[in-house]
Amino acid sequence: MKSDSSLPSKDTTAWGRRRFLNTAALAGLTMGAAACTEKESGAANAPAAAPAAAPDAAHSGANATHLKPGELDTYYGLWSGGHTGDMRVLGLPSGRELMRIPCFVPDALVGWGITNESKKIMGTKPDGSLRYTVGDSHHTHASYKDGNYDGRYAWINDKINARIARIRLDYFICDKITQLPNVQGFHGIFPDKADPVDPAINYTTRVFCGAEFSIPLPNAGLDDGSKYRSMFTCVDAESMEVRWQVLIDGNCDLTATSYDGKLAATNQYNIEMGVTYEDMMSSERDACLFFNIARIEAAVKAGKFKTVGTSKVPVVDGTHEANQDPTTALTAYVSVPKNPHGVNASPDGKYFICAGKLSPTATVIDLSKVLEWFDGKLEKLDASIVAEVEIGLGPLHTAFDGRGNAYTTLFLDSQVVKWNVDAAIKFHAGDKAAKYVVDRIDVQYQPGHLNASQSETKAADGKYLAVGCKFSKDRFLPVGPLHAENEQLIDISGDKMVLLADHPVRGEPHDFIIFKRELLQPKQVYSLDDFPLAIKDPKESGVFRDGKKVTVKMTSQAPAFSLREFKLKKGDEVTLILTNLDKIEDLTHGFAIPNYNVNFIVNPQETASVTFIADQPGVFWCYCTHFCHALHLEMRTRMIVEA
Amino acid sequence: MKSDSSLPSKDTTAWGRRRFLNTAALAGLTMGAAACTEKESGAANAPAAAPAAAPDAAHSGANATHLKPGELDTYYGLWSGGHTGDMRVLGLPSGRELMRIPCFVPDALVGWGITNESKKIMGTKPDGSLRYTVGDSHHTHASYKDGNYDGRYAWINDKINARIARIRLDYFICDKITQLPNVQGFHGIFPDKADPVDPAINYTTRVFCGAEFSIPLPNAGLDDGSKYRSMFTCVDAESMEVRWQVLIDGNCDLTATSYDGKLAATNQYNIEMGVTYEDMMSSERDACLFFNIARIEAAVKAGKFKTVGTSKVPVVDGTHEANQDPTTALTAYVSVPKNPHGVNASPDGKYFICAGKLSPTATVIDLSKVLEWFDGKLEKLDASIVAEVEIGLGPLHTAFDGRGNAYTTLFLDSQVVKWNVDAAIKFHAGDKAAKYVVDRIDVQYQPGHLNASQSETKAADGKYLAVGCKFSKDRFLPVGPLHAENEQLIDISGDKMVLLADHPVRGEPHDFIIFKRELLQPKQVYSLDDFPLAIKDPKESGVFRDGKKVTVKMTSQAPAFSLREFKLKKGDEVTLILTNLDKIEDLTHGFAIPNYNVNFIVNPQETASVTFIADQPGVFWCYCTHFCHALHLEMRTRMIVEA
Repeated sequence: MKSDSSLPSKDTTAWGRRRFLNTAALAGLTMGAAACTEKESGAANAPAAAPAAAPDAAHSGANATHLKPGELDTYYGLWSGGHTGDMRVLGLPSGRELMRIPCFVPDALVGWGITNESKKIMGTKPDGSLRYTVGDSHHTHASYKDGNYDGRYAWINDKINARIARIRLDYFICDKITQLPNVQGFHGIFPDKADPVDPAINYTTRVFCGAEFSIPLPNAGLDDGSKYRSMFTCVDAESMEVRWQVLIDGNCDLTATSYDGKLAATNQYNIEMGVTYEDMMSSERDACLFFNIARIEAAVKAGKFKTVGTSKVPVVDGTHEANQDPTTALTAYVSVPKNPHGVNASPDGKYFICAGKLSPTATVIDLSKVLEWFDGKLEKLDASIVAEVEIGLGPLHTAFDGRGNAYTTLFLDSQVVKWNVDAAIKFHAGDKAAKYVVDRIDVQYQPGHLNASQSETKAADGKYLAVGCKFSKDRFLPVGPLHAENEQLIDISGDKMVLLADHPVRGEPHDFIIFKRELLQPKQVYSLDDFPLAIKDPKESGVFRDGKKVTVKMTSQAPAFSLREFKLKKGDEVTLILTNLDKIEDLTHGFAIPNYNVNFIVNPQETASVTFIADQPGVFWCYCTHFCHALHLEMRTRMIVEA
Repeated sequence: MKSDSSLPSKDTTAWGRRRFLNTAALAGLTMGAAACTEKESGAANAPAAAPAAAPDAAHSGANATHLKPGELDTYYGLWSGGHTGDMRVLGLPSGRELMRIPCFVPDALVGWGITNESKKIMGTKPDGSLRYTVGDSHHTHASYKDGNYDGRYAWINDKINARIARIRLDYFICDKITQLPNVQGFHGIFPDKADPVDPAINYTTRVFCGAEFSIPLPNAGLDDGSKYRSMFTCVDAESMEVRWQVLIDGNCDLTATSYDGKLAATNQYNIEMGVTYEDMMSSERDACLFFNIARIEAAVKAGKFKTVGTSKVPVVDGTHEANQDPTTALTAYVSVPKNPHGVNASPDGKYFICAGKLSPTATVIDLSKVLEWFDGKLEKLDASIVAEVEIGLGPLHTAFDGRGNAYTTLFLDSQVVKWNVDAAIKFHAGDKAAKYVVDRIDVQYQPGHLNASQSETKAADGKYLAVGCKFSKDRFLPVGPLHAENEQLIDISGDKMVLLADHPVRGEPHDFIIFKRELLQPKQVYSLDDFPLAIKDPKESGVFRDGKKVTVKMTSQAPAFSLREFKLKKGDEVTLILTNLDKIEDLTHGFAIPNYNVNFIVNPQETASVTFIADQPGVFWCYCTHFCHALHLEMRTRMIVEA
């Protein structure tokens, strides 16, 4: 059966060209606060003026963010760190940063990239140095069970080097990093929520990764951009190995997954496969590309795949050309307006919503109709679009309150718009009296991602909305040319949104999730058995020599290391293993060797090791760098390197 | 004239041995909250119980920290980052972290340690790689004029590698790093406040640096710890070159300077020059070591110095042996009780106060009397001690409110004690009715440094007190084994201290300063002329080849780079120079090269450069990593490396 799954036409549009932003208009838009005052008026269905609640009017709400000393937050937030390459853990509603979890980039505090254990996770070159010391994390999502977070894992992407990292949410540490083959600009990421076939697997077993930049395959330096291609990748949630990839037309931006495990999708802003930004925005419509997970895995199982270059990962064909018959198609390209940004799953499991970015619209796609199309029961794929409504200028991402409302950031308007999904569907169906825009609020300034508490779960609770504002400008004391981002917190529990607080965050967070604190039960002391090299008794301490290879075994117990001194010879290859035998929560020790570029910490009952060449003779006072005890300053051991 | 400036006797003590903590008692002290319940009762002059104000009682005070959205803080705080190796900028009273200034350690966000400009400041090995990627910053202080901060510079130490960094407070960037010769464990740091000789120089021109660890000089691997020595170092505030060093007995911990520029001092916790912690605490008294700056500089000028090893820095002799005659002495060792920690200058300019750490006392030293001693007019140096009073267990650091009160952290008691300096002096002089302890407040938990707003200036205003608690334990949501530190904020404007808020900070801040926002006027846009390599016109862009050496010149203006693509040949040595021509505040761009381990930012009107070998052929989409514009995702340039 032939369908409408051809590439969206460059000329077909439900909205007049004047409603879209074109190259000239965008080139003139500078994103200072001045831009905020330029608003398109008279958008259908929008209140005439933005009735942003004045902070003073929000007195009772404002107090909600203001914890008393010792009072705990009620929500965790996991924030991507952007090009700091880490994951941040915030407490909400206070907005306080409680932890940074090193992932893609070295961290001098914990010794991430210094210890042998962390270097193994990060990846090294043949000479033992780190393969990468930069990263660019954008999206972070956590593992699911029964449609809610289960507290096992979170994942985060690195766009620069196409890496995915996994975070253990018991210890809040990164335990695996995988580099994706055959792709560049890995951007969107989302775990599945169930298996598409086995209903007993009602939890996450896959993570989907979208690649934004198209490249030659294999990457051999071709000039001709029309020959470049992009991939959609599936990573195994447990083994962190790449299961399969899908070759596609266009590119991948954000990623979403359905609650039944059957569908994943990515919004595409460059179906033109252009190489300049003018080319990338030449078409009036782009796409939301759906993946039929069960069929893809069946194809892989049946051997219907190729491989690319030296990679052994199975690559199935998800291009238009190869997927004309809906009843066998692996992919489906639903048309959405110009350069969409963001695709988000509603908590009732029914819809994916794409925001328009260069179109002032949100597009609501009914997942049951997409499945009907895959079953050959829906003639036109775009009939799965049940609403496409104007909401404001520069819509990017959408969150949900669990009460039928969606909240979308409007980058150009510097607003969040609250709109009702059912009303939008009615309006789209012809009921022009359906008032789908419920409320608008000004934010400061130029919001990118937003998310509501529990928004991306079936347990969306509609309490708090955090908005990641890209420009903070005049909202904090000036600190030179580089500004903090402004993660604003909004109370969405009532009819009107109420701005509660401005929270500065070091650049550059993108996406984040917010969930109830009860969903996590972190452990605060390691077990010695977690570490194969653990030195369980101080009596095992010592210097063990095998020719030029020397192993130094040591333990820490406040206020002393088990060795008061240790001697080496110049030129020794030294592996120093340190186990912290202190068992008390929060009693972390550090270990620094002056001039040897070594520092790392050992948390209670943790073991870590470093390897270095003893190339400088002399006396080196190795000292505890993490405050531990009244005699912390006196906690040292002498490394004597004989010439 | 012979004086009492011999090493403080190991047996002489004004307090019974039972009042001091000995090795056995300390070894048994584990620093969890449990330790807080162990308090020595009946300390002279102390209220019977700690009357910590309940948070509820502080309602009006608590609101002071709770800014409305958009409301600005009234104070800046400069926080040392500990072994993150950076400086943090906090806004107070909100406690929000507004900026991290990379210094000693690479920073993937800004490209610190990636760009050629930052590598030059950080220091490289002959192969071009960074000399150090770890650091341990403890103390940060700012430049003075007329006894208050003048907003020019701040300095910060790196204990691991004995480095001092300078921060420009106009742009909030590190512009110089100097490694100190001949020392290990550089810990305390303080700028002078005036010249000791020239009254016209009423501002900072020197920075003093104390080295904590004694080592062989030169460092040639001696076992015999009794031959190790430590140094006190003077760095030029403008050139950042090392002016001179003083060879001393004992070690240096913290550092303080007088308002008249004549004296600097360091507290010494290891006059024993022991190599184990038991040795380091064997004496009942240690010292506060004073330096006579004018005499030291006269000695240097007169050529009365040596040099050590390959270093050319003049080293004068500040040992006991060489400084027996007060009228010519360069140094003076005032005796203070066991293992003191912290030496702080009172804002009236009269006193330095040492806290006892292993003694429950604070020692008040009258600077006018120290100067009398140097003039041969005070027979016994220890007569400069005008008070030595019990204040509680584990006293570490002292801050001031400008109203005659001192505030000292009690590490073991987990308290801050407020005490009146004049009353303590009266009590010490024999007036046992003088009630010097004014108030106590519990803090959570184990406080190290503290500081009050403007405390270390003549403009101490007695409004806020921040307390750096080393253990946070149960004060924040659990995030695994590594805990945030807890920087608590206390209102000290009234008679009673009132706890306002808990602020988590990533480990491990030590010292910090807090000052009024009016004292800084940062700039938020660079000038193109700040950068010799600036590309001032997009027309200058291009690829310029000189054999295998290639220079790529590019500019950024949202949403595009001036080059849409650039071609290289495999093996080229490429220097890429990027100037951000955007002028609008907050319009920062990033530049990442996938798989080439390159990412850095350019703030408005900034120029940065990177050098790399084009060793991988293929197409690499260089993209903007710092959100800039609605077409940020589309802002890319293609690097094509031909095989």
